[in-house]
Amino acid sequence: MSVTYPLGFRASGVTAGCKPSGAPDLGLLVGDPGTTAAGVFTTNRAPAAPVRLARERLASSSPCAVLVNSGQANAATGPRGVDDARAMTARAGEFLGLDPDRLIPCSTGVIGEPVHLEPLMQAIPAAVIALAVDGGPAFARAILTTDTVDKQGSADAGRFRVGGCAKGVGMIAPSLATMLAFLTTDARVAPADVRSLTERAVAPAFEAITVDGCSSTNDAVLVLASGAAGDGAVAPGHPAWDELEDAFAGVARSLAAQLIADGEGATRVVLVEVDGARSDDDARAVAKAVAGSPLVKTAVFGADPNPGRILQAAGAAGVDLDPHELDISIGEARVVQRGVIPSTYFSQPSELAESARRAMKDDEVRIRVAIGNGPGRATVLGCDLTYEYVRINGEYTT
Amino acid sequence: MSVTYPLGFRASGVTAGCKPSGAPDLGLLVGDPGTTAAGVFTTNRAPAAPVRLARERLASSSPCAVLVNSGQANAATGPRGVDDARAMTARAGEFLGLDPDRLIPCSTGVIGEPVHLEPLMQAIPAAVIALAVDGGPAFARAILTTDTVDKQGSADAGRFRVGGCAKGVGMIAPSLATMLAFLTTDARVAPADVRSLTERAVAPAFEAITVDGCSSTNDAVLVLASGAAGDGAVAPGHPAWDELEDAFAGVARSLAAQLIADGEGATRVVLVEVDGARSDDDARAVAKAVAGSPLVKTAVFGADPNPGRILQAAGAAGVDLDPHELDISIGEARVVQRGVIPSTYFSQPSELAESARRAMKDDEVRIRVAIGNGPGRATVLGCDLTYEYVRINGEYTT
Repeated sequence: MSVTYPLGFRASGVTAGCKPSGAPDLGLLVGDPGTTAAGVFTTNRAPAAPVRLARERLASSSPCAVLVNSGQANAATGPRGVDDARAMTARAGEFLGLDPDRLIPCSTGVIGEPVHLEPLMQAIPAAVIALAVDGGPAFARAILTTDTVDKQGSADAGRFRVGGCAKGVGMIAPSLATMLAFLTTDARVAPADVRSLTERAVAPAFEAITVDGCSSTNDAVLVLASGAAGDGAVAPGHPAWDELEDAFAGVARSLAAQLIADGEGATRVVLVEVDGARSDDDARAVAKAVAGSPLVKTAVFGADPNPGRILQAAGAAGVDLDPHELDISIGEARVVQRGVIPSTYFSQPSELAESARRAMKDDEVRIRVAIGNGPGRATVLGCDLTYEYVRINGEYTT
Repeated sequence: MSVTYPLGFRASGVTAGCKPSGAPDLGLLVGDPGTTAAGVFTTNRAPAAPVRLARERLASSSPCAVLVNSGQANAATGPRGVDDARAMTARAGEFLGLDPDRLIPCSTGVIGEPVHLEPLMQAIPAAVIALAVDGGPAFARAILTTDTVDKQGSADAGRFRVGGCAKGVGMIAPSLATMLAFLTTDARVAPADVRSLTERAVAPAFEAITVDGCSSTNDAVLVLASGAAGDGAVAPGHPAWDELEDAFAGVARSLAAQLIADGEGATRVVLVEVDGARSDDDARAVAKAVAGSPLVKTAVFGADPNPGRILQAAGAAGVDLDPHELDISIGEARVVQRGVIPSTYFSQPSELAESARRAMKDDEVRIRVAIGNGPGRATVLGCDLTYEYVRINGEYTT
């Protein structure tokens, strides 16, 4: 259903030849002329050329289309990288009859390697010709790199539709990572309200996931609203607004969960829920520390319920907490009670340890950390750290 | 030569039976009565019982001895954990003829599992009887957990001697980790000056290493000065002070390097040098981000010179930097020049990439990051992330 589920969008995915695998590597998503757009981008201090150009264009123009190449990230490529991104969007604009400033460039892949400009320029007309109202899945496949499956989602919000797709399996972390996500709707939404949807409903889902804590140079989450469903603009206060916001949040959560499930080398998902913190920020810091700890991640891989490692990670999160208030559960097993691992956990046999061990074998391991009586809460989704993660990342460019 | 190289110290290591392996697990280090001591401890918010007791005793008493058990960390053990640490040091004090408050307890091993009090209490007299002026190596072995080798060091400072030993291979991170380190000297040093030595000369070496970014519940670095070499106290301004400080710093750096070389699953050491930062703190943050990045660590394992990952880690360090000022070298190969990976890096064949690839195969991989023209600099020592790290930590308690 993907990004073309809402009316007013066409998409395509073609092969320019930038990946050794010969897989599709050039995606184009185009909204009807009235489309509005907003985006959030990586916080990395060395952002890729397309990220810098995308920020500029969203600030000064009215983008309605996205051009994505996969295989090369066009990061650390200097002035040439910006020239390349400009050239590609200029050529697509020419064939689409659009001002180049209305196209947002996105790139993903190896950092530093220049984009393969010639084959990309040659493939752009084909990408324009291939544009179709059912082209979402082809677009979703063309943006992948080391992903093993495509990630798509959709939802209905009354008479409006919301769609989306995403990519990214490594360098994935809160604050966004080597992750691209595109969400669309056929509601008419003013530019300022698209920004609000992006920041309030969509971004939090992607900020609550972590594969390896590495915030990439290229992360981008873009939201486009075509208005093709007709009627006037939907805005905060409008009867349909809340439903639209919920639909965006739901699609974003689904895409984020699909990213984690396909995390590099991942065999299990970890859901870390923290409550009782002084603030949501404190809760999020603890949840990220637990989901991001290599010792917790390897324990999840080994299905080894090691409460001490969860305790260690929570205690080292940089959040002021009273260890005597700390409760930790793995599944239903309360393995830390007021800061203490019950000594029954270490008896042989131990019902408590067995219960935790069973919970560690679930596809989605649930870890709950209560750190006090405060109102702050957060949920973060992570994955395990496996031999396969080491293999993939020890052999990526070689 | 270890902790008993300086005069005025006796040490021992015996087997109480707390480790399934049957390896020595109880260490005792005792300084002459006039010994002064200081320590720095984990910043983890859930410190182990012995850490809490050690802090108390260093603040209020005059400790001159250390009792270490390995196998169980005595963390997350609640009031019972504190009782156990008190009981053990009381029994050792009884046999040594020392006030229990003069003994500093340390524990390392599995978090949550109570110490095996009965065998430990039974073994304490044997540890006292075994105390010897050449007992340092036995002590150094008794404190190990998953370490594959012991870590010892010594240095001379004029007529004074400095010795040390350490343990720790995982949960090692800046701000100290599942790491214990003990340094001794036979100089006479006033308590306040021992604190200064600890904080200025010793702690920085241990804060500049990272295995997995996990700051443990039990980290402790203790410095003891026996005064047994005779003469008056050495203090700042004294002709021997600078030499003594340098000797401590040298032993600390040696122990820290030994910890990293034995990092869990490590096959290579990574030395990250950062300069040109606005401050040393900024430089340290970037160096830690690079040395701690799982993508850099797996690249080092694969001997794969992936400049984009170093750039990504530097950019995501949370430090305000201008990517156009960024220079990165792997060995002698300048793989990022003013923010750009030279396109020659990606040509086939590439002399630049080959030079970087050779440097990645060294036992100690040197990565240099220049981030501007500021005076700030820092060096951090890390290690690679390997299949073996995943194996060790996926199977630790099972």
